[in-house]
Amino acid sequence: MKIAQITPLYEAVPPKLYGGTERVVAWLSDALVDAGHDVTLFASADAQTRATLVPVRDQAIRLDPALLKSDLAAHMAMLHEVRRRMDEFDVLHFHVDMIHFPFFEDCAERTLTTLHGRLDLKDLPGVYRRWHQFPLASISLDQRKPLRTANWIGCVHHGLPRDLCRFNDAPDGDYLAFLGRISPEKRVDRAIAIARRVGMPLKIAAKIDPGDKAYFEREIEPLLQGGDVEYIGEINDRQKPAFLGNARALLFPIDWPEPFGIVMIEAMACGTPVVAWHRGSVPEVLEDGVTGRIVDNEDDAVKAVHDVLAYDRRAVRAVFERRFTDEAMASRYLDLYAQLVRAREPDLGLRLA
Amino acid sequence: MKIAQITPLYEAVPPKLYGGTERVVAWLSDALVDAGHDVTLFASADAQTRATLVPVRDQAIRLDPALLKSDLAAHMAMLHEVRRRMDEFDVLHFHVDMIHFPFFEDCAERTLTTLHGRLDLKDLPGVYRRWHQFPLASISLDQRKPLRTANWIGCVHHGLPRDLCRFNDAPDGDYLAFLGRISPEKRVDRAIAIARRVGMPLKIAAKIDPGDKAYFEREIEPLLQGGDVEYIGEINDRQKPAFLGNARALLFPIDWPEPFGIVMIEAMACGTPVVAWHRGSVPEVLEDGVTGRIVDNEDDAVKAVHDVLAYDRRAVRAVFERRFTDEAMASRYLDLYAQLVRAREPDLGLRLA
Repeated sequence: MKIAQITPLYEAVPPKLYGGTERVVAWLSDALVDAGHDVTLFASADAQTRATLVPVRDQAIRLDPALLKSDLAAHMAMLHEVRRRMDEFDVLHFHVDMIHFPFFEDCAERTLTTLHGRLDLKDLPGVYRRWHQFPLASISLDQRKPLRTANWIGCVHHGLPRDLCRFNDAPDGDYLAFLGRISPEKRVDRAIAIARRVGMPLKIAAKIDPGDKAYFEREIEPLLQGGDVEYIGEINDRQKPAFLGNARALLFPIDWPEPFGIVMIEAMACGTPVVAWHRGSVPEVLEDGVTGRIVDNEDDAVKAVHDVLAYDRRAVRAVFERRFTDEAMASRYLDLYAQLVRAREPDLGLRLA
Repeated sequence: MKIAQITPLYEAVPPKLYGGTERVVAWLSDALVDAGHDVTLFASADAQTRATLVPVRDQAIRLDPALLKSDLAAHMAMLHEVRRRMDEFDVLHFHVDMIHFPFFEDCAERTLTTLHGRLDLKDLPGVYRRWHQFPLASISLDQRKPLRTANWIGCVHHGLPRDLCRFNDAPDGDYLAFLGRISPEKRVDRAIAIARRVGMPLKIAAKIDPGDKAYFEREIEPLLQGGDVEYIGEINDRQKPAFLGNARALLFPIDWPEPFGIVMIEAMACGTPVVAWHRGSVPEVLEDGVTGRIVDNEDDAVKAVHDVLAYDRRAVRAVFERRFTDEAMASRYLDLYAQLVRAREPDLGLRLA
């Protein structure tokens, strides 16, 4: 199948440091190529991909040192180019929220749009109602709650390359891990409290956005006194497997409806069980009693950590392999692409299937 | 003529506090109504206007207390509505940068787009080249420099209602004024230095954006020691005439290519002369030797302040009345509207002229 992938331009594909959407686009594009498809990726020139790259900006926006830039203009210029070439593709798969809607109104049936963000924003219902012809994919079922009547045609959980976070049956660390951003809704303070009550060291790998610096200094830094909690800063993809694989468990005590927490499946790939709060996509991703425990208060979290220390790490990895590889993700998206093609051109649909 | 005005949704029309574009849209819409035209304003519901209001959001975005909102979605929903109703209008006048381009590609000749911002951003040339069919108006000639080959059809300086900033022939203050934002490119530090060398008190009325708070505390606050410099905070439209009208001169020592500094014409309306740096639109707005002095260093600025104290305030006001009223602005825009209509429909153009 001839597939176009259209990514946001904020981070490189994959991101050099933190960044979710562009990382998933990178994994998906490569997995579709591996499955034998003809994939074209519209992205900034710093992308690293096995797909055919159409570079639409010299570099990704966030780390571009230029002081004066316009993310709206950058995305509009990219979409202009995508539209110019659209007849080359069987399916156009967009990851840029809603901004492409006015460009592709007359051919929405050739597009699939994965929504990657939270959807409980005041202004969204008006848009998804007005452009209801665009077929949408969610990244969890929970994500859909604020927009139940939108035109959902599928739900595809994220997946990652099988060998990216290698399975580690015998972690050589004796710590709990926290990986993500330092921000109020990620609740690293809860992770610290839980680790202290369990009596195990906690290692925190996390970026601090400029907007969260005051929160870090006021709320979190004072909690870092004592040798039992270590803040090691932002880590890259090469450091991640060792950090997660050597941990005895990952703490994921989120306090917001996170549509999909990639770090949960990264930990599972390493065989590391997860103790997570019952919010957002957590109940869809974790299998309670196998890959971790789902809790909703600190007392239960402390007990849950004791439980998961005894879990079979091979069973955790097995769930990852069954449900959360890039191959599984690509296969589910291919089903959706085929469904779109069949609805539009029954003959072509059969040929491509 | 049947005219649609399409405003950004960040501030109310006119803004409750600081805000440039939405203020100009408010003045222009009312002046077009006063000139006998049928004007429809697409804006948030808190607009105060003599035009027919189409409310497209319950309130403007910036001061909306909702935590989770999407300015992109809000503007897209508005543009969807504008397009649905576009056949009702002879001309659609957009003030929303470029975001409407994909919506109106097949009828660009019925639109006029005023660009209100600086244009030296990395991603802009690609957009204005790709959508070259859209006729553009600049708010100064200097603003065009980074995009000389764009499709400019006119330049319309801003204008304001004749009685908004009333003429004051005998200011009862003995101070210099600074009005705007506290930010590095506005150079309030220069204004303070000039006032001290001249030996006159300086009053500063300015908003401080959250992003500029650290700059204020580090660079500006220490300069406020001593009774000769007074910081009075952000002021509203009712306070502005007294603040500007009672000043002996306005200092406008900007250090960036400001496309149009509205405060210069507000001061001129009061009869207050302006000492300004030779940047951006300044040479197009000020008449050196009549409404103020244009300088490019601090020594000259000090001399210039002494000069302008002796200027005839009635001559300053006369330039405002001739060039910078809302009526003058509306009349220039009407010329552009008529030009568009004539190019498209010669008969209708004659009838409307």
